[in-house]
Amino acid sequence: MSSARVPFSRAEIIAVGTELLTAFRTDTNSLFLTARLNELGIEVRRKSIVGDDAADLAPAIRDALERADLLVVCGGLGPTEDDRTRETVAEVLGLGLTEDRAIVERLRERFAARGWTMPENNRRQGMVPDGAVVLDNARGTAPGLLLETGGRVVVLLPGPPRELEPMFTAVAQARLSKHTAPDRLYRRILRVAGRGESHVEELAQPVYERWRRATQPVATTVLASPGLVELHLSTRSADPDTATVALDGATGELAAVLGEHLFSTDGRSLSEVVGQMLRDGGFRVAVGESCTGGLVTAQFVDVPGSSSYVETGVVAYSNEVKQAVLGVDPGLIESAGAVSEAVAVAMAEGAQRVGVVEIGIGVTGVAGPGGGSEEKPVGTVCFGVVGPGTEREARTVRFPGDRAMIRRQAARTALDLLRRVLQRRMRERATIRGSGS
Amino acid sequence: MSSARVPFSRAEIIAVGTELLTAFRTDTNSLFLTARLNELGIEVRRKSIVGDDAADLAPAIRDALERADLLVVCGGLGPTEDDRTRETVAEVLGLGLTEDRAIVERLRERFAARGWTMPENNRRQGMVPDGAVVLDNARGTAPGLLLETGGRVVVLLPGPPRELEPMFTAVAQARLSKHTAPDRLYRRILRVAGRGESHVEELAQPVYERWRRATQPVATTVLASPGLVELHLSTRSADPDTATVALDGATGELAAVLGEHLFSTDGRSLSEVVGQMLRDGGFRVAVGESCTGGLVTAQFVDVPGSSSYVETGVVAYSNEVKQAVLGVDPGLIESAGAVSEAVAVAMAEGAQRVGVVEIGIGVTGVAGPGGGSEEKPVGTVCFGVVGPGTEREARTVRFPGDRAMIRRQAARTALDLLRRVLQRRMRERATIRGSGS
Repeated sequence: MSSARVPFSRAEIIAVGTELLTAFRTDTNSLFLTARLNELGIEVRRKSIVGDDAADLAPAIRDALERADLLVVCGGLGPTEDDRTRETVAEVLGLGLTEDRAIVERLRERFAARGWTMPENNRRQGMVPDGAVVLDNARGTAPGLLLETGGRVVVLLPGPPRELEPMFTAVAQARLSKHTAPDRLYRRILRVAGRGESHVEELAQPVYERWRRATQPVATTVLASPGLVELHLSTRSADPDTATVALDGATGELAAVLGEHLFSTDGRSLSEVVGQMLRDGGFRVAVGESCTGGLVTAQFVDVPGSSSYVETGVVAYSNEVKQAVLGVDPGLIESAGAVSEAVAVAMAEGAQRVGVVEIGIGVTGVAGPGGGSEEKPVGTVCFGVVGPGTEREARTVRFPGDRAMIRRQAARTALDLLRRVLQRRMRERATIRGSGS
Repeated sequence: MSSARVPFSRAEIIAVGTELLTAFRTDTNSLFLTARLNELGIEVRRKSIVGDDAADLAPAIRDALERADLLVVCGGLGPTEDDRTRETVAEVLGLGLTEDRAIVERLRERFAARGWTMPENNRRQGMVPDGAVVLDNARGTAPGLLLETGGRVVVLLPGPPRELEPMFTAVAQARLSKHTAPDRLYRRILRVAGRGESHVEELAQPVYERWRRATQPVATTVLASPGLVELHLSTRSADPDTATVALDGATGELAAVLGEHLFSTDGRSLSEVVGQMLRDGGFRVAVGESCTGGLVTAQFVDVPGSSSYVETGVVAYSNEVKQAVLGVDPGLIESAGAVSEAVAVAMAEGAQRVGVVEIGIGVTGVAGPGGGSEEKPVGTVCFGVVGPGTEREARTVRFPGDRAMIRRQAARTALDLLRRVLQRRMRERATIRGSGS
């Protein structure tokens, strides 16, 4: 490896597999690889996806090696005739292939341990190009390979993520980190709920534009998904402290303009942030939901350990169940309508009572495609939060999009509403304590 | 377009955007484009993802045009300085750019309709390479472009899916379909639940291998995700009937070997299949779930119109809620354990009673990462289905993977168990009716 260029400046990733060229599958390994490469300060400049056919794969590898000084190729290391990566790379680099007896022996043992005989096909996985370093695969049969050629490094990895990920983490640490620039990329993720992308841009742009031109520049990317906007900040430096000071500065200024809409600056999800607040306050929560059909509860439950603060969730579509399980007054449904803030609050109270907990959440709305009216069109969702203590909050939001988008946004909004209630309460308590001292 | 090659044989897709080279975003437009292209019998042979930098984009376009006869480029048509696709393609093809006044006028009107003045930047979106066909964008400011060069066709599309999709559908119909082979690709998707990938392969491989070598060959791809295996069959023919006969033949033989594990041959999801069975039988269902935390109910609710057969779902983590809401006997929890088939059945009975419905489903298990024991390790999940009528089914499965994977597999298994109960019942009824005649 001594002749490899220092530092790497351009990495490319090639994902190999005919199934990745169908309408049903896409390459996701490159997201993991990019994260690891960026940590080392290495930028990914191109990603290519090609089929198993050697006639397509060979030129892709050849072209990439003309541009990149680090090439990662994923997939095509299996035992079948379709798996051509090993042979094609050897051919492009003009290297011979020799069977590595130790690899084949380990494969045989692996099969024997399960009481099977190794198919002869699998011997192909023991073929190693001249001069290649063999990378152990703890979780599968295909070993990885690392090759060096004309100052460039080529890494071949198996396609399954559970095999690729530990293998690449190991090779990045042991072999690639030596060849990277002293510069590292440092990142911070800011998450915002309850405000659309354009509103967030309007608030944040003057701040991040200034930081983009700062002495230690901080780059910002805005990413939006239903009910959530993320600001990804990054800065490149050889000195961790310089990077931290810049990221802290930009984060602090962005936090000031985003105010209570900002809920996370440390990568935690909304479920994690709310879960932590509930744990800190010693509160448990119960959910009564209709149009979100279990998604609000499922969101809480996403977080390991959530069973300590999620007591119960009741999906109540029909008025009968709203009445029988959550105790919602049928007269109220009659007078206010099933989709109303009054019923959302009554569902929250019912859930609170059923779960015998401090906080109840109620959600009722029209997720569509049917069921809308002029007054309450598809996308109208009402939220209620009752507790802790005397807290009481109701809200109506009209979400855009189709059924799935409406439900996802509604589930996020329910969590966000609870976050705002808990945050306000914490602020008020702090003020009371402050004024009493 | 008259000089374009007929038929197209190789398509490539380039997705442009620096954000697509981060660890947080990936190109998904190509899945939509591939589906449309395959319908026309056009194969996608390579996909590339490059940044907004013209120095990276120009060689990518140049190389692709050496290989492909149809090139689709997505993204980089916006109004900012970063958006370089239009200019780069013109440069690579040696074409001049002229402002199209009609486009700029429409842009101005679009802004004016919202009470805004068009930023001068947006004029860039009116620049058209010589000889290009302008593709209308009903949902955004960036028009698409279609160019022909040396027998090749290049289509430039805006990046946002909601703008790209209708635009490409229109251009595919109006302009690309003329240049395709008479051959079309016909597909069938078979879905299997309750059996792992290797088991499905074992049953199906002899059948699909034979069809792969048939006079009218049918290709099969096996795709697996937690709790679900899909077989994608495809065949290429100029004659729809020939294709249908081959796909029907292969589907019929695969159905015979897969038996009751096969639940769909028409693209419907498990939720849709079970929903239809419930509707057909006039049954309503209620769910009592713990470790799946709302996912079983959410799966039912994914389907529009599901409120007619999903009556209620109760998430009951704690023994208290299992007892108070679902009426599970605390003595039973004590003796059998919270994670047991007996408790799963009792939860199903409780849900059935609470919802006043024909069918109850109960799910209780250890999703991890904590909570496992030697006897009931992480991944152990018990299921109960009670009803319709005297039906009663219980099952225990141990799932591999992490918390999220265990929960997803468990939710699918619950639905699949209900499907098997309903299917068996239908078969028995048919037998009784048959023997009575």
